[in-house]
Amino acid sequence: MSNAARFDAAKTLDFVAVGRLCIDLNANEINRPMEETVTFTKYVGGSPANICIGMSRLGLKTAFIGKVANDQMGRFITGYLNKEGIDASGVTVDQSGAVTGLAFTEIKSPTDCSILMYRDNVADLLLEAGEVREELIAATKLLLISGTALAQSPSREAVFQALDYAKKHGAVIAFDLDYRPYTWTSDEETAVYYNLAAEKCDIIIGTREEFDMMERLGNNPGRDDHITAAKWFDHSADIVIIKHGKDGSIAYTKDGASHRARSFPAKVVKTFGAGDSYAAGFLYGLMQGWEISASMEFGSAAACIVISSHSCSDAMPKAPQVHEYIERCLAGEITAASN
Amino acid sequence: MSNAARFDAAKTLDFVAVGRLCIDLNANEINRPMEETVTFTKYVGGSPANICIGMSRLGLKTAFIGKVANDQMGRFITGYLNKEGIDASGVTVDQSGAVTGLAFTEIKSPTDCSILMYRDNVADLLLEAGEVREELIAATKLLLISGTALAQSPSREAVFQALDYAKKHGAVIAFDLDYRPYTWTSDEETAVYYNLAAEKCDIIIGTREEFDMMERLGNNPGRDDHITAAKWFDHSADIVIIKHGKDGSIAYTKDGASHRARSFPAKVVKTFGAGDSYAAGFLYGLMQGWEISASMEFGSAAACIVISSHSCSDAMPKAPQVHEYIERCLAGEITAASN
Amino acid sequence: MSNAARFDAAKTLDFVAVGRLCIDLNANEINRPMEETVTFTKYVGGSPANICIGMSRLGLKTAFIGKVANDQMGRFITGYLNKEGIDASGVTVDQSGAVTGLAFTEIKSPTDCSILMYRDNVADLLLEAGEVREELIAATKLLLISGTALAQSPSREAVFQALDYAKKHGAVIAFDLDYRPYTWTSDEETAVYYNLAAEKCDIIIGTREEFDMMERLGNNPGRDDHITAAKWFDHSADIVIIKHGKDGSIAYTKDGASHRARSFPAKVVKTFGAGDSYAAGFLYGLMQGWEISASMEFGSAAACIVISSHSCSDAMPKAPQVHEYIERCLAGEITAASN
Amino acid sequence: MSNAARFDAAKTLDFVAVGRLCIDLNANEINRPMEETVTFTKYVGGSPANICIGMSRLGLKTAFIGKVANDQMGRFITGYLNKEGIDASGVTVDQSGAVTGLAFTEIKSPTDCSILMYRDNVADLLLEAGEVREELIAATKLLLISGTALAQSPSREAVFQALDYAKKHGAVIAFDLDYRPYTWTSDEETAVYYNLAAEKCDIIIGTREEFDMMERLGNNPGRDDHITAAKWFDHSADIVIIKHGKDGSIAYTKDGASHRARSFPAKVVKTFGAGDSYAAGFLYGLMQGWEISASMEFGSAAACIVISSHSCSDAMPKAPQVHEYIERCLAGEITAASN
Repeated sequence: MSNAARFDAAKTLDFVAVGRLCIDLNANEINRPMEETVTFTKYVGGSPANICIGMSRLGLKTAFIGKVANDQMGRFITGYLNKEGIDASGVTVDQSGAVTGLAFTEIKSPTDCSILMYRDNVADLLLEAGEVREELIAATKLLLISGTALAQSPSREAVFQALDYAKKHGAVIAFDLDYRPYTWTSDEETAVYYNLAAEKCDIIIGTREEFDMMERLGNNPGRDDHITAAKWFDHSADIVIIKHGKDGSIAYTKDGASHRARSFPAKVVKTFGAGDSYAAGFLYGLMQGWEISASMEFGSAAACIVISSHSCSDAMPKAPQVHEYIERCLAGEITAASN
Repeated sequence: MSNAARFDAAKTLDFVAVGRLCIDLNANEINRPMEETVTFTKYVGGSPANICIGMSRLGLKTAFIGKVANDQMGRFITGYLNKEGIDASGVTVDQSGAVTGLAFTEIKSPTDCSILMYRDNVADLLLEAGEVREELIAATKLLLISGTALAQSPSREAVFQALDYAKKHGAVIAFDLDYRPYTWTSDEETAVYYNLAAEKCDIIIGTREEFDMMERLGNNPGRDDHITAAKWFDHSADIVIIKHGKDGSIAYTKDGASHRARSFPAKVVKTFGAGDSYAAGFLYGLMQGWEISASMEFGSAAACIVISSHSCSDAMPKAPQVHEYIERCLAGEITAASN
Repeated sequence: MSNAARFDAAKTLDFVAVGRLCIDLNANEINRPMEETVTFTKYVGGSPANICIGMSRLGLKTAFIGKVANDQMGRFITGYLNKEGIDASGVTVDQSGAVTGLAFTEIKSPTDCSILMYRDNVADLLLEAGEVREELIAATKLLLISGTALAQSPSREAVFQALDYAKKHGAVIAFDLDYRPYTWTSDEETAVYYNLAAEKCDIIIGTREEFDMMERLGNNPGRDDHITAAKWFDHSADIVIIKHGKDGSIAYTKDGASHRARSFPAKVVKTFGAGDSYAAGFLYGLMQGWEISASMEFGSAAACIVISSHSCSDAMPKAPQVHEYIERCLAGEITAASN
Repeated sequence: MSNAARFDAAKTLDFVAVGRLCIDLNANEINRPMEETVTFTKYVGGSPANICIGMSRLGLKTAFIGKVANDQMGRFITGYLNKEGIDASGVTVDQSGAVTGLAFTEIKSPTDCSILMYRDNVADLLLEAGEVREELIAATKLLLISGTALAQSPSREAVFQALDYAKKHGAVIAFDLDYRPYTWTSDEETAVYYNLAAEKCDIIIGTREEFDMMERLGNNPGRDDHITAAKWFDHSADIVIIKHGKDGSIAYTKDGASHRARSFPAKVVKTFGAGDSYAAGFLYGLMQGWEISASMEFGSAAACIVISSHSCSDAMPKAPQVHEYIERCLAGEITAASN
């Protein structure tokens, strides 16, 4: 295989994600503050949910481990996963009266986007360790965890339980840091659990700021990417991707190499969903056995497609779309100037 | 005056409501379950908010005492109150990170409507006794309290503080029972605080079921309206309205009389908001010095207008609309059959 | 009867108290800070418990309504009540893992005493409205409530339930304000519930500072005892006792009169328990039909006996002891100088 | 060195413990249920506190990292540590109104002992990661953590922070499992954090039952000690001690060897404190460079001395006492029969 990740071809599932399932309510009236928006459209959301939908659209066999509210929103989410061909047998239904997390999006301009979150008493953070289905993790080549699920008990313990199963059964583990300050109670708490989880992961993907948050425990005052990556190679990691926003992403591998890839122009509607579609595209590439830089390129193109659209989950592309996007960019048919 | 309520003509405000301010998200696609709805329209909601908007539309001088979240939803609410001419100087802004309460409505059919509530960590229940502006209550002829605000501390204490100010300054007090089981922890707790508040009120409006809930402390196994009303006349009440759904409402007065009024046909879209528009219309009638039955009739017609519309707050009628509706009904121009 | 309180002679119980049952751990080594004390002696404590024990010692038929922890401390309390002849059938046992409240006493000097409280997750504050046995209140001449039980739900609702039963069955209601700042969350909350309860009581006993706390809602900047008392005569009260520490207590009655009584010398060990024994002695006197000033005098002598002793509950005197104490004081046999 | 642990001789402190500091209230009247005990004697308690006191008595340079309440109990604890020569500069004082944990002991018979715990809102569980003084851990040869401190946030994160510092600075880490069911919310949560901590420790000491609790995540249905120990040698451990109560303890080392030691007779008063004094004695032996079995023997003798006494902390022996106890046992001067 031409990249650092080793997937067990004998496994029957390609991809299992664990963590947040929620609802995005995207303002239909864009380029204005939410005080002035009147109508909203409902989508399935949550970073691991988006990535899982993305992987399924790309043609992989996928499953989800999570928890939904026992209400119309929860049933909408489960119905959508089923419709997308995602095995939702690991999605349990809360019986305690929890609600579905909500994210109201506000798009003031393509570059000025924000989210109003409803995260009190949400079902996804109530997933318990005992509800994590070992057989799903035993069957998968790749497990994805997401930082948000570490924010509170019992979801936090469920993630560590999932990591334990993945280690036991030899699944490759990817960690999408996905740090969101709300629901965490302190920086110390955040750093402690991010580090405990990251020590067990094979692939770690995050922004420079997310890695900074984790390093408050350690020593890297110069915020040097090599030092950051090297720490994780001393634990379980094979690949560490550090995202620098407009300056592009760099992938570091245990062999000491670093990898960059081309970026593509896009007619940006909003920035939401860029990271999730990038992660789906990149991990898909790795699982095809592509070079790391080719995988990164595929992720970038997938991200361009999503940020050119109104939704996140619903806009996740199929593989031919991504290939076509790359070709059209290379042919000069898509330019940012046409935005 | 021809009804039992005595309003102090020297006061500069007609009406002050205290309690819940929230957001209604009404499904645009009706006559289906919420799992299948895709878009929602945003309105100001909450029973006392709706009543206050109704009173303002009817031409009265109004103010609101409550608390909103420090976010786009909160600012939308305050902006709407201002636009409607309601004095919002008594609406404080939460600084603790609370959210705005949400009510997603589901209209499966005109008679099968339900609400999915978001009531965790909501700003309206964080109104504190010290934030209740005495000068607003000192200035008003009529104070309205609503049962939902009694559900939790500190909002519960704020309501008792408001009642204390109203007693001190001679405002007539109306209590819209508005009992919603969520947020209350037990039937005993509910009954205790509803009774403590009702003992101090001049006008009490509720359904038979709401009065049943309050009487679990007492003795009225036959659910006799006269016994129910008589209890409150031993305390502060002058008027007790008991609503029997399709069988209409009955108003009892301290003099031992009971009053009924005509009901009107309507092309029903949904049942939400009927009680709020009824309360606004009835209290408006009382404040005009109308007979109780005439006030009830006006309330019924106002309710018909609201339930024929998609929203609650936004559909609150002006006085001429209500008079016209009554006239058209009497002329046979509006019939339920035309629904 | 020669005092303002009217007790129903047909009732089979003299006295029922509702509220706090806890454990006092009194330092055996006195006149030093608790950092230097080594051993503690265990007693039943809690203001209403002490008063009830006092009433039973004085020869009355008594019962208690409260809740104890399901542990050795809880069983010690119930055993002690039984031993003292108090009907403990209204004392329920918590099943939620709550603990028994503790009060470690520190006696640095006879006039410098303090208490270290353990009040987290205590059983006594978990008494529920549904656990208040109506038949005990129906059977009693006099019900005592205590402010501490108002500090939290569900105990708060249990007190209002008890008041409702007492009103229904014609029991005289005494309110020992017993305000302790811990467990209350704000001054506003405190004042609201103290006032709601006091409005329903026949006899109110408290310190000037406790009445000040209740009057933050009202208008008495000069802290005038007559204004304070008059407010309650507008509600249910017949007798209001305001305690001024060393300056003695004054009883106000609905007829506009005020009453003072002699005080007695004592060899003070500590000040704890003075208020509880005073209340027991005073209420006992009232129930004997004595003049108010004679009742107050009896309360004062009972208090002298308790503060001359190491414990509170265990030192509650029998009636002959109190009479003897008064006689010995009048005969000059007891003087403070002999302390 | 003749045992598996490698201590850095250049460090200026021998031993630092992190975790629980509390108060034991030992019934003075023994051989009866607590319902019948009347007086209690106050001691410093808490497993890591006892071990630290033991290490200091044995002549080592020690320090403690923890948190105490801002009250007389907290000051008593800090004063006692100072008196024992323990560096308490790492003991912070809570400012949030937390209390000191209490343990009332009940000794029905030498073999029937129980504890009544007060663990609500205790200061020791409020130690924060940011309050763990890195310089103390940097300076110590040996760090002890205790399972109780993992039971709740923020103390849980403080322990992981301490482990991170110990790894960074090369301190040997000992983990006294000290599992107490109260304060933990579920078995899954317990197992997750015990495992995450144990993975980072060099010496792990616990009962067979404690290791069973940790293995619910794994596969050891036969409860085989070798399998248990082997798991930890795959992580950081060099020594794993599994205690089998009356059947004695077995130490496993990374080289595949197992070690047993003689046990000694004792005139048992109560069983409390046996584990803490054993741990102190054993760790002391290791730090002297003794063979593992000699260290275990020393621990056993230290335990015998403590269980023959009324207290835990106060009875911790000095080294000559332990040596003398062993000699007297070997000489037949102490026998269990003399109990």
